[in-house]
Amino acid sequence: MTEPQPGFFEVLYTSRALRRFKPDPIPEEVLFQLIDGAIRAPSGQNAQDWRFIVVTDPAIKARMQEWAMLGWTRYQPKYAEDPSLIAQLPRAQRLSLQGVHDLAHNLATVPAIILVTGLKGRHGTPGGSTFPAVQNLLLTARALGLGGSIFNLPMFGREALTELLQVPETNQVYCVVPVGYPTDRQGPVSRKPVRAVAYRDRFGQAWEFAERQPDTGFQERWVPRPQER
Amino acid sequence: MTEPQPGFFEVLYTSRALRRFKPDPIPEEVLFQLIDGAIRAPSGQNAQDWRFIVVTDPAIKARMQEWAMLGWTRYQPKYAEDPSLIAQLPRAQRLSLQGVHDLAHNLATVPAIILVTGLKGRHGTPGGSTFPAVQNLLLTARALGLGGSIFNLPMFGREALTELLQVPETNQVYCVVPVGYPTDRQGPVSRKPVRAVAYRDRFGQAWEFAERQPDTGFQERWVPRPQER
Repeated sequence: MTEPQPGFFEVLYTSRALRRFKPDPIPEEVLFQLIDGAIRAPSGQNAQDWRFIVVTDPAIKARMQEWAMLGWTRYQPKYAEDPSLIAQLPRAQRLSLQGVHDLAHNLATVPAIILVTGLKGRHGTPGGSTFPAVQNLLLTARALGLGGSIFNLPMFGREALTELLQVPETNQVYCVVPVGYPTDRQGPVSRKPVRAVAYRDRFGQAWEFAERQPDTGFQERWVPRPQER
Repeated sequence: MTEPQPGFFEVLYTSRALRRFKPDPIPEEVLFQLIDGAIRAPSGQNAQDWRFIVVTDPAIKARMQEWAMLGWTRYQPKYAEDPSLIAQLPRAQRLSLQGVHDLAHNLATVPAIILVTGLKGRHGTPGGSTFPAVQNLLLTARALGLGGSIFNLPMFGREALTELLQVPETNQVYCVVPVGYPTDRQGPVSRKPVRAVAYRDRFGQAWEFAERQPDTGFQERWVPRPQER
């Protein structure tokens, strides 16, 4: 007998990037499930050269927060100098940027930070044998009631980071994924509609079927509306 | 009311790379669902610069097969010269390589070939804003009873390919995904166990919990054994 599980499409359509977490630790079994889900992804020539580092050590998380805060100052100098400017942005951009700001400044308190590495030069398409597994990890987190996002500000301290985590020369860090039990709600993501990003047979050639679909695509098939939940 | 849907973990644990297809065309609604699922993925700064080209035009597919066959000759010269050597490989490698061979030589008959493109130089981590969407697409295919894989042999003809499909200079083709109704069965994938690819706090540092888990991880929780299906 298998265990009850959430519906595939509901997980797919409601996996938001979540960046604020409760302090609750993540049980070992749940951390294991995240990686066990990640590795079901494909990789070029089935190389499986992905290597995950699950960081829960407070001292290491504290160092990563320092680099993330430096990264924030470097990549968002305007908002680093005057964070109140974020409040004046349009809603979607404001929420996203505030979330990144908060995560950078609270990274040490996030229950777990997962780093994803792979062999340098192993694959013709960089990232093509890593990010499918990362997406599996994020979807698995969603399915288990956790939240996360790809968050690369700590890679501002890349050299010090690889040294601290003893990542060998042969490997590179592809991304950093902080995970935990979210304080923000999961829910449908908003995206450009398919007709704006998909073509038929040639780049730029309109797709008639897609032109006739609603902006939210098939979301209503799979995600209960708020009043139905 | 939402529609019935397959379980998330069963989809995740049984998404094999499938490379042989029935000739049955894929309904427009199903093609739309593949892209509508893909775009639920995250992208850096939520840029959504992914652009998909859904190719069903027989003439274009025929050209892509030519490049794929040339690619096969180039990347697998030994097996291109004497395909019977494939039969002598260990099982997993044999099945995989035979599948790639067959797909290269039958690409024109695959119902749909989806190309995934993105803006050149838009993101710091190449592929990090593309392959999460590609993985969503592959999982969605699995959930709908289709099969597919990332199959980059047609990119051997990259310049001619971008010209034929009128991909602008600003964009690059990240990958090629042939999809269709598979003749091979879906089923659990086999992977290196978590303990072989995941560490705690530092690269190379053993993860005690993972050491104690079976090689198949949590697969039995989520996938019915053959006799239960």
